[in-house]
Amino acid sequence: MSNSYGTLFKISTFGESHGPAIGVVIDGCPAGLTLDEAFIQTELDRRKPGQSKITTQRKEDDTFKILSGVFEGKTTGTPLAIVIENQDQRSKDYSHIAETFRPSHADYTYEAKYGIRDYRGGGRSSARETAARVAAGAVAKLLLQRLGVTIQAYVSQVGDIKAPHYTQLDLNKTEDNIVRCPDPVVADQMIALIDQVRLDRDTIGGLVTCVIQNTPVGLGEPVFDKLHAELGKAMLSINAVKGFEYGSGFDGIRLRGSAHNDEFYTEGGRVRTRTNHSGGIQGGISNGEDIYFNVAFKPVATIMQDQASVDKHGHEATVSGKGRHDPCVVPRAVPIVEAMAALVLVDFLLRNNAARSI
Amino acid sequence: MSNSYGTLFKISTFGESHGPAIGVVIDGCPAGLTLDEAFIQTELDRRKPGQSKITTQRKEDDTFKILSGVFEGKTTGTPLAIVIENQDQRSKDYSHIAETFRPSHADYTYEAKYGIRDYRGGGRSSARETAARVAAGAVAKLLLQRLGVTIQAYVSQVGDIKAPHYTQLDLNKTEDNIVRCPDPVVADQMIALIDQVRLDRDTIGGLVTCVIQNTPVGLGEPVFDKLHAELGKAMLSINAVKGFEYGSGFDGIRLRGSAHNDEFYTEGGRVRTRTNHSGGIQGGISNGEDIYFNVAFKPVATIMQDQASVDKHGHEATVSGKGRHDPCVVPRAVPIVEAMAALVLVDFLLRNNAARSI
Amino acid sequence: MSNSYGTLFKISTFGESHGPAIGVVIDGCPAGLTLDEAFIQTELDRRKPGQSKITTQRKEDDTFKILSGVFEGKTTGTPLAIVIENQDQRSKDYSHIAETFRPSHADYTYEAKYGIRDYRGGGRSSARETAARVAAGAVAKLLLQRLGVTIQAYVSQVGDIKAPHYTQLDLNKTEDNIVRCPDPVVADQMIALIDQVRLDRDTIGGLVTCVIQNTPVGLGEPVFDKLHAELGKAMLSINAVKGFEYGSGFDGIRLRGSAHNDEFYTEGGRVRTRTNHSGGIQGGISNGEDIYFNVAFKPVATIMQDQASVDKHGHEATVSGKGRHDPCVVPRAVPIVEAMAALVLVDFLLRNNAARSI
Amino acid sequence: MSNSYGTLFKISTFGESHGPAIGVVIDGCPAGLTLDEAFIQTELDRRKPGQSKITTQRKEDDTFKILSGVFEGKTTGTPLAIVIENQDQRSKDYSHIAETFRPSHADYTYEAKYGIRDYRGGGRSSARETAARVAAGAVAKLLLQRLGVTIQAYVSQVGDIKAPHYTQLDLNKTEDNIVRCPDPVVADQMIALIDQVRLDRDTIGGLVTCVIQNTPVGLGEPVFDKLHAELGKAMLSINAVKGFEYGSGFDGIRLRGSAHNDEFYTEGGRVRTRTNHSGGIQGGISNGEDIYFNVAFKPVATIMQDQASVDKHGHEATVSGKGRHDPCVVPRAVPIVEAMAALVLVDFLLRNNAARSI
Repeated sequence: MSNSYGTLFKISTFGESHGPAIGVVIDGCPAGLTLDEAFIQTELDRRKPGQSKITTQRKEDDTFKILSGVFEGKTTGTPLAIVIENQDQRSKDYSHIAETFRPSHADYTYEAKYGIRDYRGGGRSSARETAARVAAGAVAKLLLQRLGVTIQAYVSQVGDIKAPHYTQLDLNKTEDNIVRCPDPVVADQMIALIDQVRLDRDTIGGLVTCVIQNTPVGLGEPVFDKLHAELGKAMLSINAVKGFEYGSGFDGIRLRGSAHNDEFYTEGGRVRTRTNHSGGIQGGISNGEDIYFNVAFKPVATIMQDQASVDKHGHEATVSGKGRHDPCVVPRAVPIVEAMAALVLVDFLLRNNAARSI
Repeated sequence: MSNSYGTLFKISTFGESHGPAIGVVIDGCPAGLTLDEAFIQTELDRRKPGQSKITTQRKEDDTFKILSGVFEGKTTGTPLAIVIENQDQRSKDYSHIAETFRPSHADYTYEAKYGIRDYRGGGRSSARETAARVAAGAVAKLLLQRLGVTIQAYVSQVGDIKAPHYTQLDLNKTEDNIVRCPDPVVADQMIALIDQVRLDRDTIGGLVTCVIQNTPVGLGEPVFDKLHAELGKAMLSINAVKGFEYGSGFDGIRLRGSAHNDEFYTEGGRVRTRTNHSGGIQGGISNGEDIYFNVAFKPVATIMQDQASVDKHGHEATVSGKGRHDPCVVPRAVPIVEAMAALVLVDFLLRNNAARSI
Repeated sequence: MSNSYGTLFKISTFGESHGPAIGVVIDGCPAGLTLDEAFIQTELDRRKPGQSKITTQRKEDDTFKILSGVFEGKTTGTPLAIVIENQDQRSKDYSHIAETFRPSHADYTYEAKYGIRDYRGGGRSSARETAARVAAGAVAKLLLQRLGVTIQAYVSQVGDIKAPHYTQLDLNKTEDNIVRCPDPVVADQMIALIDQVRLDRDTIGGLVTCVIQNTPVGLGEPVFDKLHAELGKAMLSINAVKGFEYGSGFDGIRLRGSAHNDEFYTEGGRVRTRTNHSGGIQGGISNGEDIYFNVAFKPVATIMQDQASVDKHGHEATVSGKGRHDPCVVPRAVPIVEAMAALVLVDFLLRNNAARSI
Repeated sequence: MSNSYGTLFKISTFGESHGPAIGVVIDGCPAGLTLDEAFIQTELDRRKPGQSKITTQRKEDDTFKILSGVFEGKTTGTPLAIVIENQDQRSKDYSHIAETFRPSHADYTYEAKYGIRDYRGGGRSSARETAARVAAGAVAKLLLQRLGVTIQAYVSQVGDIKAPHYTQLDLNKTEDNIVRCPDPVVADQMIALIDQVRLDRDTIGGLVTCVIQNTPVGLGEPVFDKLHAELGKAMLSINAVKGFEYGSGFDGIRLRGSAHNDEFYTEGGRVRTRTNHSGGIQGGISNGEDIYFNVAFKPVATIMQDQASVDKHGHEATVSGKGRHDPCVVPRAVPIVEAMAALVLVDFLLRNNAARSI
């Protein structure tokens, strides 16, 4: 009962990795938006499997079909239903886990919670579900384009290899390489590392940084739905995420207030801050400065090695990865992070609309 | 429009720092719970101001009154309304910020969002609001006691001073000192640091670690309301929080899957994991192992020093901290973190109830 | 878990008939509204007990206190908490029903559902809860005043005595008599009937009609939250209500489409309908014509006569009304109906705001 | 933003009359339910167009496809997505209303609210959307079957022709005739009337009565989500509904309390009432007696006659019904009423589950 996200721009996703289709229903999209289907496909292509040597080799075109909510190319204010059929299921790859729990996967917890699970490809717990989020996020991005808001995520760390701070990068270069790091030298190192990990039949973690620019002042709702709280939840709901920080984040622990506080000044009639430890958010509300945050991803749980485990009956068992999997999830996570950020922002924009005087 | 938290055990808080009262309405508390009022007061006392030399000297008893939902000492299934009157408001301390924005506070963003703000003591953006959360969290803890679930938070870092990993600590010693760190030697160092910072008229950040033990398997709702996503949102909604991580957290970035995966085994008929990088959560659902997570707090924004800022009219201004404030927020944040964790768990327990077959 | 109403202008009520207080938290009230407290009191006075010979003689001033959300006389966008203390509880009047179920009351169903009930004055099931709704509805009315929307309810039937159709009445005369029927002759008949019923130690049902004028076009949300569906739910949630109809209502069953359809024409550049069987709502959305609906109230269940019943142990028992009760509920229901209608309209206005393009 | 219904068994419908498909996502269906697809089809067949001479002649098989949430024939606790493709769209039948508003339809209000509308077949405002509800309701019915709860609706009035009270009918005979009235004599009269109306190129209103038997005690949530309030909203959200009443309903206005009250007695250890003016609901909570209610439907707005209207530009226009429409909606409304009732009941059953102690 939590397959929906958002309060006013609400998405409901459905679908399993190896079922007939996955998809999303978007409720609350304002009427009159020209729906650029090519853009939605571009976003899906950034996430789809099989796009490079460092991603899973499962082949899915991830072409989508819009079943409702659009008339003569524009949204009508009624729900948009978007469906993506599954094509390249090789469910037989998964028969070995019908009875056995893969370490650090959701097999055991789904079985314990529901008493039944679709084990094929991880079923509902598969990151395939995120394609539906990317499709919905693309619609959200189209709305944000009207305001000039930009959301740009990139891979900022793989294993121990780190990119420089975002202010030292050209974020328009993220798509120039397969690992999606805008620093070409660091990108090469990351690619080499992932490739080595893949050859080792292993996996590795990584970090995605997201930068949102040109945000209106005033997004975020005290006290529980603070902008960063909602961004945090949205990011933590993505498969394999272990942590979230914004602005100074965990480094802020070490600082003193006198060093951490962002002094105000006025520039061109606009209130601004000289530093931005706040990450563009104060009191849970955007202040117009850049919003930036980090999302930590663990190494993918499926490795091509034997691991000790147990089966449904509590007996010892050995599991080895089969199927087709990513050695490192972050390159494909970049559009997912952006999509979730877009959904959060649009929802808060609509909530701000709602709070206008009547 | 987000002063409520929870789906089935829903709390709605209200109140400003210097208004007549703050409070909370709890909707969804099961009937028949013996309401231990002394326990609620104990929890409020752990959070209240003025409890030691390293906290703000504002004096508030934080005594509460229950207006509804209890009959002959037991909950009736109807809403519990709990009110805490404000006593020691010194609103004149705040007249200097009626027109001026304190750096890294919510003054500017509230003004921009609402066009009006109660500047006295920070109004709604004051951490005083968290007293209402602690009261509600105490009720949630009473429910969790029935299952033997324990939630224990403590201060694990202040500035650069860190406590050992939780598995090397006796968490029952947290309340033995005023900084709420269960390691007495580290605690003394932390207290000394905070005291120095206070004398420097400055503030400092810190880290709270929370450990939840004896959790039932199966808490958390795929796909958006994953247990850690909801914990993350709950923690990030607390004033001054900048980051959240659970299990291996940000350190998980560096690990390979072969090192990070938690192998399963069976112990006494129960499925367990040999390591716990998962932090007790797999696929967003609790697996019965310890849940542990870290919450990063920035240094308190109010410092007793002059800072550059601007006023409502965009003119340059100087702000200096007045009023009574904490030099470091984490000692008082410990019960708040526990309260929010309790609210998250109870909500998921009720959601599990709901999903039972009919 | 349903003590809240509304999606964007959300109210949460609390309190029992004989507990310390009842009240309401309003979340989502736009900032900057001048809060006319005298008006709120006037509305509460219209609902309060003891106001005339045909209402219960319980004495409650129903004076309220605002605990939060207002600063210098204006709303701040944060939650408004309004509390009304209970004064004239005579709980001993109710000891006879601690163990026995009053016929057609909620005693049995509360006991069965919760396993515990506050029997004093009906506890949470008492219509006293509606005072909190009236207070919240008064705030909603203040918002509607800005748009010139008027909501006017009146008593249109008591027993078999009926008032003429609303178009033949001067709705400004409703408050001219104690039964709140704008036709003075009919009002006298109604008062005489209620008085007779009271002397007979009995009670009688009635009908409230509500007329909303000057509504903007476009309120109501397809497909589930149609304007009339939400009005219907709001009205049916009021104690003792048995039915709801709008526009042609149940009489529409008999009509043919050719007679029932409301033809469009243009008047002063505005699209209007020549007839109004639609009751101002088409496809669940307001069309700008008068919205009108009827709300049927059963006779109050508490009568001053012996009735057969059973006790908690299933034994036969006799119950006779004690306490102080209304012989007919509709005169006091008028402001409650208006309050709920105001809450529905404001919520839809905010939802329309939200759907504006961004 | 209200295309979802339910709190714990939540359905989200999508689709337009002449778009590619309509459908529904069900979130919150408990795991382990054997999904009887033949039963779902049977329910859809009861609602589908073209089933008899007194219904519209549009031909839709209304065959459905389940895209997710089922594994090896059982529900898995993840969302069920059900899609029904549209087949027999004759959109050219509707070009005449692209610019003109049909009287008493939603054309004008949709245009005014959204600034754009899919006019083909009424777009989203078409009753075709209710097929998605019937599919979801069928799943809800499968859950209710486990408890032995039965929901039986039937046509109780067409124009002035009325069936006897439900207690005098054999509700198992409802499907024996095309008008769905269990009294064969009255049914014949109804059919003759509808046929005459159809020949007159007109339409007529009707009444559906619904009876729910074997309901557990305790369904319904004080104070806003009373069982009858939620049933009322659910019914009023169905196209063409103008009124709702339960138990004594509008007739209760005339009664005195002494006649209206339902005295309690004990039968076989169970608390029962001798009469049932309460309609099985007291204080908003089911008491175990039969729940019965009436739903009033207006005559279908589309008639095969010229009617005066206006176009988008405010000019006078004449509209005549084209397309294929029902002369009377109630025979096909019977399964829709049942479906919505089933959804309401299942939701409350899950909410009762949730409120169990933990």
